[in-house]
Amino acid sequence: MMFEAQVIVKLKKGISDPEGANTLKTLHLLGFENVKDAKTFHTFDLLVEGKNKENVEKDVEKMCQRLLTNPVIHTYKIKVSEV
Amino acid sequence: MMFEAQVIVKLKKGISDPEGANTLKTLHLLGFENVKDAKTFHTFDLLVEGKNKENVEKDVEKMCQRLLTNPVIHTYKIKVSEV
Repeated sequence: MMFEAQVIVKLKKGISDPEGANTLKTLHLLGFENVKDAKTFHTFDLLVEGKNKENVEKDVEKMCQRLLTNPVIHTYKIKVSEV
Repeated sequence: MMFEAQVIVKLKKGISDPEGANTLKTLHLLGFENVKDAKTFHTFDLLVEGKNKENVEKDVEKMCQRLLTNPVIHTYKIKVSEV
């Protein structure tokens, strides 16, 4: 069976987000003064083959630990759904 | 009133996604052969002050056109909700 796994990778609280900070600064320079905060995050959309949802969730968890995220600075959420 | 605006920026169909392609290749090298496709996309989380939801949506639409996205290669979705 095929599953779609979405991995949402955000920065931990207290970790600086230079891309978000620059976006905010530039929006202000462009006249969008009503923007009070800007954050950015990354998402991976994976198409994964597996027996069942639990197996795929475990696999994606391993992928996060080994490649997709950096545990020092990132938090992540995994959403798995059947295609 | 304060609103949270989420801008999800994806690559248009046919535009190459080298980050996704490299992620897929590396997952295979790590032994995760059951991953069949990998795509990446970017999200901006904005905190915006405005009179009402419609105004904020219009403002964020302008921000997308002027800064947040590149119309040549990106498609985007805007989700606005009251905080």
